[in-house]
Order: sequence, then C-alpha cells, then structure tokens
Amino acid sequence: MPITTPLTQLLGIKHPILLAPMDTIAGSRLTRAVSEAGGFGILGGGYGDQERLEAETRQLSGFASFGIGFITWSLARQPRLLDIALDANPQAIMLSFGDPAQFAARIRTCGARLICQVQSEDMAKQALDAGADILIAQGTEAGGHGASRTTVDIVPAIVDLTAGRVPVVAAGGIADGRGLAAMMMLGASGVLIGTRFYASVEANGAEEAKQRIRDADPNDTVRGVIVDWSRSLFWPAPFTARTLVNDHIRRWTGREVELMQRAAEVTVEYAAARAAGNFEVAAVFAGEAVGLINDIPSAAEIVERIATEAEQLLTGRRNSSASA
Amino acid sequence: MPITTPLTQLLGIKHPILLAPMDTIAGSRLTRAVSEAGGFGILGGGYGDQERLEAETRQLSGFASFGIGFITWSLARQPRLLDIALDANPQAIMLSFGDPAQFAARIRTCGARLICQVQSEDMAKQALDAGADILIAQGTEAGGHGASRTTVDIVPAIVDLTAGRVPVVAAGGIADGRGLAAMMMLGASGVLIGTRFYASVEANGAEEAKQRIRDADPNDTVRGVIVDWSRSLFWPAPFTARTLVNDHIRRWTGREVELMQRAAEVTVEYAAARAAGNFEVAAVFAGEAVGLINDIPSAAEIVERIATEAEQLLTGRRNSSASA
Ligand SMILES: Cc1cc2nc3c(=O)[nH]c(=O)nc-3n(C[C@H](O)[C@H](O)[C@H](O)COP(=O)(O)O)c2cc1C
Ligand SMILES: Cc1cc2nc3c(=O)[nH]c(=O)nc-3n(C[C@H](O)[C@H](O)[C@H](O)COP(=O)(O)O)c2cc1C
Repeated sequence: MPITTPLTQLLGIKHPILLAPMDTIAGSRLTRAVSEAGGFGILGGGYGDQERLEAETRQLSGFASFGIGFITWSLARQPRLLDIALDANPQAIMLSFGDPAQFAARIRTCGARLICQVQSEDMAKQALDAGADILIAQGTEAGGHGASRTTVDIVPAIVDLTAGRVPVVAAGGIADGRGLAAMMMLGASGVLIGTRFYASVEANGAEEAKQRIRDADPNDTVRGVIVDWSRSLFWPAPFTARTLVNDHIRRWTGREVELMQRAAEVTVEYAAARAAGNFEVAAVFAGEAVGLINDIPSAAEIVERIATEAEQLLTGRRNSSASA
Repeated sequence: MPITTPLTQLLGIKHPILLAPMDTIAGSRLTRAVSEAGGFGILGGGYGDQERLEAETRQLSGFASFGIGFITWSLARQPRLLDIALDANPQAIMLSFGDPAQFAARIRTCGARLICQVQSEDMAKQALDAGADILIAQGTEAGGHGASRTTVDIVPAIVDLTAGRVPVVAAGGIADGRGLAAMMMLGASGVLIGTRFYASVEANGAEEAKQRIRDADPNDTVRGVIVDWSRSLFWPAPFTARTLVNDHIRRWTGREVELMQRAAEVTVEYAAARAAGNFEVAAVFAGEAVGLINDIPSAAEIVERIATEAEQLLTGRRNSSASA
C-alpha cells in the first residue's frame, strides 16, 4: 500500500519522494523519470542559464506533474527566469536560500504551489509569511548548499513550528526507505532527495562523478566555502556547500583567507578543471548519504526501493517494533 | 503495548530507553529513577573520583537493573575504578571514547554486559572485536563529548556494519517519542538519552543549569574544545564537547591558540566560576535536543512520555502514515 500523507495528497503523487532541484544535475530527463515513477521531479533552475532553462522546460511541455526549483538570491538577479519557468506550467515552484516574499504573489497568480526550503525557524516563518504551501526542512547532511543544523534537529523543529498548517518535507542524508520512514516518525510528510538521485542513470552528470558518489564513504564529504570561492561565487551566510573531499579541498583547507585573496587566479584553474572533468580539482556536490549509496540504478528503481522499504517498515512487516 | 526489541530482551527492560552515564549528572538517584520507570539507568563514572563512585554505587547496592559508564581513556589511568564498579554488580558496563579491549575480559568474567559507545565504523569494529554486547551509535547532536558524524548518518551506518550481531542503540538529539520511533525505523533497537534527563528532577545538577537547558534553543549549543581547554583537560582527537553557548565560549571562540597558551591561568578562573555556579563562564553540557525540552519533570514522566508517544507512532495511532 503506498504511503499517503498531506504531501502526496497536495501534489497528487503516489510516493512522498521529491527530487531535489539539483542545479544542472536534475535536468528534464531525471525530473520526468522521478515523476513517472510516482515521486515528484523538480527541475534544477540552477544559477540562471536562460538558454538551458528554456531547453529543459521545452522537454517538459505538456508533462503534468513536476516542479522547478530556483536559488532565491540568484533568481532575484534574473527575475525573468521565473516567467520562463511559469510558462512551462509547473505544478510547483521551489525556492531555496533567500526570502521568497518578492516572488510569491507571481507564483500564486499562475496557480503553482510554492515550496520553500528552509534551514532555521526564522526562515520557516519567512516562508510561511510569504504563503508557502510546503516547507522543506533541510539538515546539514544535505549535498550542495545548506547550513549547520542537523536533520534530526531541524525536522521536528519545523514540524512543531508549522503545527500542521503546511506539510513539512525532510531533506539531508536520506537515501533509503529507513530514512523516509524515520522522517515520517519525526512528523515529516515526505522527503526531498538529492545525492541518491545524482547517482542514477538519468541524472545529468559525468559518469565519473556518479561513480565517485557510489564509491565514497560518509567521511568523504565536507561542508565549506572552498568550492564556491574557487568559482568566485560568494554565497550569503549562513550557507556553505557540501561536496566530496578532493585534492583541491585538501590543498585549501585552513588557507581560506589566501584563497579569497587569490580567487581570480584560482577561478581560472578551477574552471579549466571543471571543463576537463578533473574531479580532483572540480568538486562533486554530494551529501553524507553517500555512505548509503552503492550503485547507479535508474531513478524509477530508486523511487521504488525507497517507497517499498518505507512501506514495509511503517506497516511493521520488516521489524517487530511494536509487539502485538 | 511496550516496544519489544533485541535491546529490551537482552537487558530485560520494559522500554528501549537508556540513561546516558553523564559524568556527575547521572548519579544513583537518576539511575534508579530511570530503571524503576522501565528504562535502563547508567550511572556516570565520570573522570574517576573514587570516593564519589564508592558512595554512588553503595546507593545502588542490591538494585537489580542498572549499568555504570566510564570514559575509557580516563579509566585507563585508574583501572581500579572498574573493580569498584564491578563490585556493585551492575548488569552492564558502558565504555566510551577509547579502545575497550583492555577491559573487556574483566567485565565479561564478572558476568556484566559490555556496552560501547562509538562515533565511527572503525570504533564500532574495535568494540565488536572486544566482544561488545551492545553498540551505541552516537551522533554529533549529542550533549557532552562526541565527534562530527550526525545521528541520521551514523545510526544506519553502524546498523549495517553490525548486521544484526548485536543491538544498536541511537544517541544524540533524541528527547521525545518521535525521536525514538525514528531511530527504530533507522534500524536501532533503542535510544540512549542524556540532555533530556539532565533537565529532570532527579538529575544531580544545579537548578540553574537545568533551567538553562529548558530555556535554550537548539542554536544555543556548540561543539568545541574551549570548555575542555579551560579545565586543562585535553581530550584525544576526534572528540570535542557540546555545551550551551555562554559568555566564556563567545569570548574565546576563534582565539583557541591563545587559550591554549593561557590554559593555566584560565583554568583557575574557570574552576572558580564552576564552584560559584556562574554559568556564563562554567559550561552546561547539553546537546541539540535542548530545542525539544521545555520543562523539568521527573525521570519517570520522561520515560513514560517517550515510550507512549513512540508506541503510538509505531502502531500508527497518531499518524496516518500508511493508508490501510
Ligand atoms: C548536486 C547537488 C546540487 C544541488 N543544487 C541545488 C540547487 O541548485 N538548488 C537547491 O535548492 N538545492 C540544491 N541542492 C540541495 C538539495 O535541494 C537538497 O537539499 C539536498 O540534495 C538534500 O540532501 P541529500 O543530498 O542528502 O539528499 C543540491 C544538492 C546536490 C546534491
Ligand atoms: C551533561 C552530559 C554529560 C555527559 N557525560 C558523559 C560521560 O561522562 N561519559 C559518556 O560516555 N558520555 C557522556 N555524555 C554523552 C552521552 O553518553 C550521550 O552520548 C549523549 O548525552 C546523547 O545525546 P543527548 O544529550 O542529545 O541525549 C554526556 C552527555 C551530557 C549531556
């Protein structure tokens, strides 16, 4: 029996599993695959490459169940991207990292749901004030950008704060059915998953990046500023990026001040490494969930596995948790 | 219906809730209270005050269900304390922070179970090699000493590693029934709880410390070395202490090298503040769970609340997780 929650009801989906709008990694192919498997795909709007967004949304035209995600502070510099996104008739727009207020009315007018990813109670209040329909409570375990509170801490905190007004979705470190079931016990209505879907057939990502995620241990990720500064990308506090550790990060750890001073030069080096697919310099964005990831299956298989395992756990078929 | 797990069966307890052996805070009174409520109390052996240990174990003499916990690297300096502990006939000895191998045989000979708290796969392997009967997988959310991996990450990692050979107990950030139920979904057989029991009637702790825990937000705790260095206590890597933030920590943050150089002088100041109960200098050890703590009830009430809420969640009475 599929798991029914306020989230599945609101979005009309079968499984409470959302694909994180991973920058360029969550393209239209992965988005479709997750939605077709009964989850909810969210296309990565990324840092605002207009041509890419147009091409990707074209691929989704006529498709009924998907969302598009933006980095709020970046979208504020190119608000036109929101129009392109809304023209594709997404069921939801997801905004992360910044005050969603300025975009909320426009999103609502188009009939799309507003999903906001938050990392603290204050950000959650801001999102609720803006009229968010769904909150994502993101823990520091997450791949990519985020803050410092852990999933076990932030999820019940946001659940208590919303007090049932909107569904709360857990993000950060979830890659299997145990994680989904655990988050539901904490009061979440579902999960948003990034890293696990990166290591899937349909993700837009170099094969080597996917293999590095598959092969990494949880100790192999780190959260920090080195990767952003090496791209001359200066994120507002409190956000930092979690990536796999590589030679470049080892080289600059503890020398962040020097890196800042030499940012221009390092940015050239870093861009070249990225273009060349040199992952000992260019970072693979990934979260602590790498420890749970040991293969690169299709997105449909990932959704199915997670849903099935969670259903079994929640209905007590796999553990004798409560004695009869 | 109480929750039955390999942990409750092994220890013969009603609820899968263990009291963490918090240094001087978990004295005989709290230990008894938790065990009498159906959990499992573990007396804090702390840093090896022999007189205190003798007095506290005397209070527990003839009591059937309890454990005694030690800091392994500290016990290694005063191995005699283990004899005093074993003389009290505890059901289990808990060892944290160091290789348990040198003490395992002695503990087994006395018929006590060996519980080991671990923060990584390597430490878990060491504990299993030593013959541990129960592993505690501790996340960075925990109050007091610990390492960097989060609860959502370390618990399934240790569950997978042990593959059912011994029960795994989750620690770090758990203070309510949601947390217990969530950890069971991750594969744990129960939880070890510190901070929540600190803010209880029976804990040995200053009333003001308990109130500070009750009133704190999760953002108000921090993990670091300042508190230890201010006591001239130099813990081995990778362990640091999580405490409430106070004036002293704010003052020294970012100036750890200077603190190290002035350790002797600061240690005098710090000891005086501790004696005077000045909690803007002396630290209150507490974890991220402070965000879930809003009162100072009896230990029995804490056990009862957590067990009842978890039972309801696990049997689906409080959430419509899996549709029938
Ligand atoms: C490769 C990668 C890229 C990401 N890019 C974005 C992004 O552009 N916008 C965003 O809101 N979140 C982004 N995230 C964070 C996700 O929204 C989400 O919080 C995270 O993936 C959840 O944790 P998990 O990776 O452990 O599943 C990214 C995550 C990853 C792994
Ligand atoms: C005040 C306090 C003192 C602690 N002292 C010890 C100790 O002496 N030995 C030990 O093994 N763990 C100690 N811990 C850590 C606990 O064993 C346990 O991992 C932790 O309390 C679990 O996380 P929680 O505080 O979020 O419940 C202490 C924790 C606290 C809060």
